[in-house]
Amino acid sequence: MTVATVGPVRVIGTGLLGASVGLGLRTHGVAVQLEDPSRTALALARDVGAGTPAGPDDPEPALVVVAAPPDVTSDVVRAALAAHPHAVVTDVASVKGYVLAELRAAGADLTRYVGSHPMAGRERSGPSAAVPDLFLGRPWVLTDSGASAPAALLAVRHLAVDLGALPVAMDADAHDAAVAAVSHVPQIAASLVAARLRTVDDTALGLAGQGLRDVTRIAASDPALWTSILAANADAVRAVLRDLREDLDTVLGALDSAAAASGPETVELGALATIARAIADGNTGVARVPGKHGGAQRTYAVVTVLVPDTPGQIARLLADVGDADVNVEDLHLEHAAGRPVGMTSISVLPTRAEHLETELTARGWRIVR
Amino acid sequence: MTVATVGPVRVIGTGLLGASVGLGLRTHGVAVQLEDPSRTALALARDVGAGTPAGPDDPEPALVVVAAPPDVTSDVVRAALAAHPHAVVTDVASVKGYVLAELRAAGADLTRYVGSHPMAGRERSGPSAAVPDLFLGRPWVLTDSGASAPAALLAVRHLAVDLGALPVAMDADAHDAAVAAVSHVPQIAASLVAARLRTVDDTALGLAGQGLRDVTRIAASDPALWTSILAANADAVRAVLRDLREDLDTVLGALDSAAAASGPETVELGALATIARAIADGNTGVARVPGKHGGAQRTYAVVTVLVPDTPGQIARLLADVGDADVNVEDLHLEHAAGRPVGMTSISVLPTRAEHLETELTARGWRIVR
Repeated sequence: MTVATVGPVRVIGTGLLGASVGLGLRTHGVAVQLEDPSRTALALARDVGAGTPAGPDDPEPALVVVAAPPDVTSDVVRAALAAHPHAVVTDVASVKGYVLAELRAAGADLTRYVGSHPMAGRERSGPSAAVPDLFLGRPWVLTDSGASAPAALLAVRHLAVDLGALPVAMDADAHDAAVAAVSHVPQIAASLVAARLRTVDDTALGLAGQGLRDVTRIAASDPALWTSILAANADAVRAVLRDLREDLDTVLGALDSAAAASGPETVELGALATIARAIADGNTGVARVPGKHGGAQRTYAVVTVLVPDTPGQIARLLADVGDADVNVEDLHLEHAAGRPVGMTSISVLPTRAEHLETELTARGWRIVR
Repeated sequence: MTVATVGPVRVIGTGLLGASVGLGLRTHGVAVQLEDPSRTALALARDVGAGTPAGPDDPEPALVVVAAPPDVTSDVVRAALAAHPHAVVTDVASVKGYVLAELRAAGADLTRYVGSHPMAGRERSGPSAAVPDLFLGRPWVLTDSGASAPAALLAVRHLAVDLGALPVAMDADAHDAAVAAVSHVPQIAASLVAARLRTVDDTALGLAGQGLRDVTRIAASDPALWTSILAANADAVRAVLRDLREDLDTVLGALDSAAAASGPETVELGALATIARAIADGNTGVARVPGKHGGAQRTYAVVTVLVPDTPGQIARLLADVGDADVNVEDLHLEHAAGRPVGMTSISVLPTRAEHLETELTARGWRIVR
């Protein structure tokens, strides 16, 4: 693969993202200079092969990637623009508007700055969790500062492409509004739902199903990181959150009417319709969520199979799926509390579903129709 | 397997649950009599092997299972108690308090009634979606009417066990409070988050990750069914939802302070701590959610592997996992929009994680550490 990125590249901040950027560039032979206030993080990043700690004799970098915590990003970008007067500088902070605003207020040279946000992450953090493939196939948002030089925009686009990401050009405010709706508000909702479970007894929690596990999975996210993200994007997040609260109040009002009634026929006019509308609006919204390959979730057919919960069974199932020449678009194991059998739901292209059911049945699998 | 259920069993309402009860009992050779106001649903249930349409010459049933829509359940139960004066009658409605209250108000014979709720379901509904294994390994809540005869409680417990479910005794109110927290409020939250996506443009939706897909998956649920469930459990649901709204308002207040500030140091005292607390409380709650085998999610270690997106690759991976004699507790495909490589996260017992990583690496897999 030919690499478009012109080195050397300086990575400031060697956490998960910075070290992964370094690792990815190193696999292409690009020279990477590393900086981090933490000597431990710096040494770890070097040890995982993300690059070489920056020294006084380093050649001037052509590109500086700032991967510092969101709350210090603009300061570090500003310092980098000053320290490297000929370099293009980008950052990977997950919120873009406030960084740009702070740089503009400080009179930074915005011709050499392009904000960016790779939509990639992991449960684990820090340089030891870094991987060169972290950005593979993930959207990488590029935000023009409004004054960004074409050469600067191209340099950051090349970085994204060289790391296997999919560049997406958006202005900073559009980006912040987008992540508020598709990431930040869902995080808050998951955390609030999970928080309600603190006081629920174990017997009640024993009734939990896959739905609750799915809704609350991301509630395990890091409070410190999310506090800085949400604070930095407070404006966009509260706009979406206020609309959500209005919908919530509407549902609560309908539930009050339903609770006051003795039965469906005595429920205040419109209350049931209000509840139905809230669920139906959710149907409309979720149908728009892109699945794998950018297609909508609904474009896949689901084939559900009973699978004994012993080593190798799922492998045997998927080997048979492979033999049937059907590609697994998504896979979902349904949990069977304490039981020796589980259900595996396989998402496939609708045109392949019937073929797959036939093939699997012929191979002795129990299809759940 | 010896069956404890004494037949004949009459199933009233041959939708997904009723037909699945019939199918499960038929596999044990128990005589099943079917009733449904819809002749089509009745014929379909018969065709899938759920039992035989009830006729005038049928022997009196020993047990009646009412699997009618929630809003008509108590009427149907009352009619069944009257029509079959010696039978034990149970229902499978997902809300229990209002059914019991309506039966008590109507002066029904509660000694022969035991409310129940099998925690099982599927995306698809109706008799054609019925499977004998629907209840396998799922909790099945049994609610004593307060007057239920020991023999009646035993009969319904036998039904649950014979269908492979795990009986859980709870009183009706405790059940309703439990499902409000672990099922009904999460459903509303998922629907409200998804509803906010209706007005988000496609570019923004393109930034969606697995987190959003997980949080909003159940937002695809059926509005009519959920309206009757939420209306029937309005009291318990609004209690949890009001607490959630209070938490939401607290977060909104903190976001207002953050939005008004020029930077972290100027944010009103306590606002950031409030946001951090909301996320941290979510950590505490989600850590209590039982995973597969009833263990907490956190008790599994996750091994993440890069997998080419071509037929048979996941099968090859899981075959290797099987060869390594490691059992897959859970599996999660990370989507790679339009890209030829995906990440597969395999949850295993922590004691097996290192062994698995070694084995997979030796077999040429790229482990994402």
